[in-house]
Amino acid sequence: MSAKNQLRDDRVAEFDAKSLRTAFGAFATGVTIVTARDSGVADVGLTANSFSSLSLTPPMVLWSLSKTSSSIDAFRGSDYFAVHVLSAEQETLSTRFATKGIERFAGVPVDRGPEGIPMLRDCAARFVCRTAYQHEGGDHVIFVGQVLDFTHTGRLPLVFHSGRYGMVFQKEAAQQDPAGETGSSLSPNDLLYHVSNAYFRIRRGGIQELRRRGWTGEEYATLSVLGRENGLRLAEIRARSEARGRPIAPETIERLVTRGLISTANPMGAEREVWLTPAGRQALIEIIAIHKASEAHVLEGFDLSEVQLLKQFLRRIVDG
Amino acid sequence: MSAKNQLRDDRVAEFDAKSLRTAFGAFATGVTIVTARDSGVADVGLTANSFSSLSLTPPMVLWSLSKTSSSIDAFRGSDYFAVHVLSAEQETLSTRFATKGIERFAGVPVDRGPEGIPMLRDCAARFVCRTAYQHEGGDHVIFVGQVLDFTHTGRLPLVFHSGRYGMVFQKEAAQQDPAGETGSSLSPNDLLYHVSNAYFRIRRGGIQELRRRGWTGEEYATLSVLGRENGLRLAEIRARSEARGRPIAPETIERLVTRGLISTANPMGAEREVWLTPAGRQALIEIIAIHKASEAHVLEGFDLSEVQLLKQFLRRIVDG
Repeated sequence: MSAKNQLRDDRVAEFDAKSLRTAFGAFATGVTIVTARDSGVADVGLTANSFSSLSLTPPMVLWSLSKTSSSIDAFRGSDYFAVHVLSAEQETLSTRFATKGIERFAGVPVDRGPEGIPMLRDCAARFVCRTAYQHEGGDHVIFVGQVLDFTHTGRLPLVFHSGRYGMVFQKEAAQQDPAGETGSSLSPNDLLYHVSNAYFRIRRGGIQELRRRGWTGEEYATLSVLGRENGLRLAEIRARSEARGRPIAPETIERLVTRGLISTANPMGAEREVWLTPAGRQALIEIIAIHKASEAHVLEGFDLSEVQLLKQFLRRIVDG
Repeated sequence: MSAKNQLRDDRVAEFDAKSLRTAFGAFATGVTIVTARDSGVADVGLTANSFSSLSLTPPMVLWSLSKTSSSIDAFRGSDYFAVHVLSAEQETLSTRFATKGIERFAGVPVDRGPEGIPMLRDCAARFVCRTAYQHEGGDHVIFVGQVLDFTHTGRLPLVFHSGRYGMVFQKEAAQQDPAGETGSSLSPNDLLYHVSNAYFRIRRGGIQELRRRGWTGEEYATLSVLGRENGLRLAEIRARSEARGRPIAPETIERLVTRGLISTANPMGAEREVWLTPAGRQALIEIIAIHKASEAHVLEGFDLSEVQLLKQFLRRIVDG
C-alpha cells in the first residue's frame, strides 16, 4: 500500500459520523420491515432499508442489522425471516416498526410463516426466507436469506432518501408536443392547458347541472362563496370573487334573492349581510355532491399517494 | 425442518425467474456505477443497483456482482473500487455503463483514485473503498468495501423501480384539512379545490386583462377556440364549447364581429365559417402571452421533472 493510501486509511477514523450518514442517505432505497420469531416465543420486527435482492439461482436476498440492535440475537438465532417491502401507504407501519419501547405488533394483523414467523399484509412485496449465511460487515451483520416463498403486488413503494420518506414516480420520456398556431393558443407544452382541461373535466357534470337549473357561473360563484362563509357582507363577497378576477355584480345578488336562494338581513347596501336560504343551501349541496362524485370518478385509477402529491404540487402553485 | 417447510424448500426450484425478478423490482433503489482498475491496466465500470450502506464504525458499504459478469475477475482482483451514486440527470451515464460491447469510459472525464481507479464526476455521492470482504451470495459475490474517502452533493437521485427509471419526491405529512360547513363547500381535502385554485391563480393576470378589455369569459372562450382551429363553422365552435359545459351563444359571435375581432365568411347561419381578424389574433396572442408569463412565474420553484409529473397526472384525469 502506498504512503498516499496509508494516509487515506488513517483519515478513516476522522470521518464525521453525521457527514457519512448524509452521504449514505444520498442513495435512495425502498423501505422494508423484517420479521422473525425470537426463540419460537415472541414476534420481532424492525424497519430496515438495507435490503437488496442478491441472487436468482438460488433465489437469495440480503439485509443487514447493527450488532448493537436489541433484536440481533433473535435474528442470529432464527432459521427463518420475512422481508416486507412497504407500499407508499405504509409509512405509519414503517414508523411504528422503527419506534423503541412499544408493542410493535399490537393490533397488526399477521399471517404465520415457517416456525410461526409473523408476516405482515398488504405490502408491495413479501419474501419468506431461510437464513443461508450470516456475514461479517463491520458494526453490522449481513443476513443472506434463501427465498422460500414470495408475493408481489403492484403497489407503489415507500421510499427513503436523505433521511425522509418519499415516493417514486417513473420518468416519462420528456415530451415536446407540437404547438398550435404560434402564440395564439395554449399547447400541451403549457401547464395551463392541462390545468384547464382537468378543471373542466372534473366540473363537467356540475356545469351541466348549473345550466339545467338556469344558473350563471357568476350566480354559482356567489353561492359558493356563501357555502364557505355564510353571512358575509356584500363588500366581502365582492372581495372574495375579485380575487378570482371576476367581481360579482349587484344584479347577481338581486336575482338570487328573487329566486329564493339567498336572503339579505339588512336593506340594500354594501353593509347588508347575505345568507343562504335553506333552498339555496340544499341546491348548493346538490351541486357540490355532483362535483365530488365526478372527482371520485376521475381519480379511480389513482393511488392515494399520487393524489397527495398532485395536491401538494397544486398547493405550491397557489402559495408560490 | 418440518415436512411443511421441506415442501416449501422444494418449491424454490419451481420459481419462475421472471416473477422473482418482478418481485425483486418492487424494492426501489438508487442507481450506482461501480468502477475499478483491471490488473492496473484497464478501467472497468458497470451500473449496479445492489448497493447498500452497511457500517459506520468502521465505515463500510456493500454491493454485489454476478459470478458470470465479464468484470467479476477484475473486481475480485482489485484492492480498491469506487461507488458513484447517480443523480437524476445521469440516466444516460447509467444506460451507458449497462451497455455491453462499447467503450464505456470513452469521452467520460474521470479523476483517479488509489491505484489509479477511475472516479466519475458530478454524482449525487461517491465512495472510494478498499475491498474488505468478498462474501458468498448464491450466483453473486457480495463485495464489502471500507470507505476511504467520500463526497456528497445535494443532487436529486436517479431511482430504479419495477425495471424502469424514476425520480423520488419527498412526501408531505398527509393532511386531513378541516372541511367547511358539511357538504356546502369544497375543502382542501377535495382535489377540485386545489385544481380550481391553481386554475384561477395561473389565469389571474389574464382574467384581469380580459376585464380591462371588456371581454366576457364567453367571448374569450370563443376566441380561444379559433386560436386553436381557425375557420371553424358556427356549429363546430358550439360543439367545442359545449364540451366544456357552456355553449357559445350566437349573440357572442355578433359582438365579436362588431368589435372587429372575428369575421364571418358567409351570411349568418350555422354553416358560415368564422375567422380571427388580424386584430383578433393580435389580442389573443397578448392574452396568451400573459398566461404563459404567469405560468412561468408560478413554476419558478419547480424542478423540470416535477412539472412533467404534474402534467402527467392532469393528463390522466382528463383521459380517464
